[in-house]
Amino acid sequence: MRTIRLTLEYAGTRFHGWQRQPGLRTVQGEIEAALRTVLREPIALHGAGRTDAGVHALGQVASFRCAGALPLGRIRSGVEALTGDDLTVRGIEEAPAGFDARHSARARHYVYLLLDRRSALWRNRAVVTRVRPDPERLNAAATRLVGDHDFAGFSCATADEKGTGSRVFYAVWTPWGRGLAFRIGAVRFLHKMVRCLVGSSLELARGRLTLDAFEARLTRPERRGEPVAPAAGLYLASVDYDPSPAWGPDCLPPWPVL
Amino acid sequence: MRTIRLTLEYAGTRFHGWQRQPGLRTVQGEIEAALRTVLREPIALHGAGRTDAGVHALGQVASFRCAGALPLGRIRSGVEALTGDDLTVRGIEEAPAGFDARHSARARHYVYLLLDRRSALWRNRAVVTRVRPDPERLNAAATRLVGDHDFAGFSCATADEKGTGSRVFYAVWTPWGRGLAFRIGAVRFLHKMVRCLVGSSLELARGRLTLDAFEARLTRPERRGEPVAPAAGLYLASVDYDPSPAWGPDCLPPWPVL
Repeated sequence: MRTIRLTLEYAGTRFHGWQRQPGLRTVQGEIEAALRTVLREPIALHGAGRTDAGVHALGQVASFRCAGALPLGRIRSGVEALTGDDLTVRGIEEAPAGFDARHSARARHYVYLLLDRRSALWRNRAVVTRVRPDPERLNAAATRLVGDHDFAGFSCATADEKGTGSRVFYAVWTPWGRGLAFRIGAVRFLHKMVRCLVGSSLELARGRLTLDAFEARLTRPERRGEPVAPAAGLYLASVDYDPSPAWGPDCLPPWPVL
Repeated sequence: MRTIRLTLEYAGTRFHGWQRQPGLRTVQGEIEAALRTVLREPIALHGAGRTDAGVHALGQVASFRCAGALPLGRIRSGVEALTGDDLTVRGIEEAPAGFDARHSARARHYVYLLLDRRSALWRNRAVVTRVRPDPERLNAAATRLVGDHDFAGFSCATADEKGTGSRVFYAVWTPWGRGLAFRIGAVRFLHKMVRCLVGSSLELARGRLTLDAFEARLTRPERRGEPVAPAAGLYLASVDYDPSPAWGPDCLPPWPVL
């Protein structure tokens, strides 16, 4: 059996998220169907991040096993021909046996884009906020996220087999044109975690939440209807499979074009 | 009569260009129809740049005259409600009598985006080129465009009342993620001028055109089937109405979010 690794870019707007669902167009479902046609065998695709409906990816990683000997280039062109033009295969390679895009991942990197005005060109690709957030105040809160914490208070997660803990390598707000980008890297992300973090950060920016109350969500992680920022601003930027000692706010992953 | 100035952003993909055409969706046609409904009088809208089908705008400027006293906020929200979500009114203001978005303009600024790979997220918003152009070689050519020249050799223009001359303030290629952006400001642009300049620049990058042959198109401006780069990479970035002595490659207009 071969193990194959795909790097994927997609616009999440017209997908009902990553995860296959009967009768709905999803990224996993569409690629699995394409691979089935190209390889003439049933394929189970594993993704590093299960992005929700409307969430985009610049560098999602997925893996699958197959028996056939079809060259990588033929698999790639087949998948691209059989999927919509809102999905691009950025890379395809043979992976070591045992590689699993989800379980082998050591870090995921997300970006969330905020704009201060409506924009025809960034419609569905960034989220408009009326408040002009103060990057210093936002970064004071973001800094407190770094390290090992229970993120149940910043997610829609129900405790799964791995619990609700994660290790955040960096979390930082940076200027992005006239808007702001929130960039965060962590070992793993709970369901809607980035969107909860952005939602709470905007509450903070609006003065509806104090810095201490923000931090308390890390130490007393009960969920109490935290605001969840919209999906359209969120991008799964990249996934790492080798641990790097240099991960940190000064070592943001490359974020080439957006 | 009032004179009103609009600043417009639009994604050109689903418009048949700026100019009104019977039975086709165009930017001018759609806004004029909206204004007619909102103001209950016939409106003629003048745009600073007549963008072609597929060409985008970050800061197109348009003006119209009207008799009614409706407040600007009401006009703006009416236009936004009656046009598609691929068009945003970025600004609306009263303009001095005699202001005309087209004839009063002193400089137009365009950006053209090139990517080195297919991208689901930049589909219809940037153009993919297989060659990896050399920015130094491209800039050697771009520099020669600055100043007063006859651009007939770099356009699809037929000589109109103003001839085919223009004054280019700056023309420069800059890195844009893993791609390149061509930025140019000039008093006026002939039909498809930026796309012809980009097309010829790519010929240069491919080694199919020498620097001297590129420059010769400025001194012997006959059109000979110059390559025209696709519309999807082109943005009308902004329009200036006051002359600035500082226009130049070191003073690029703000290009906040793209």
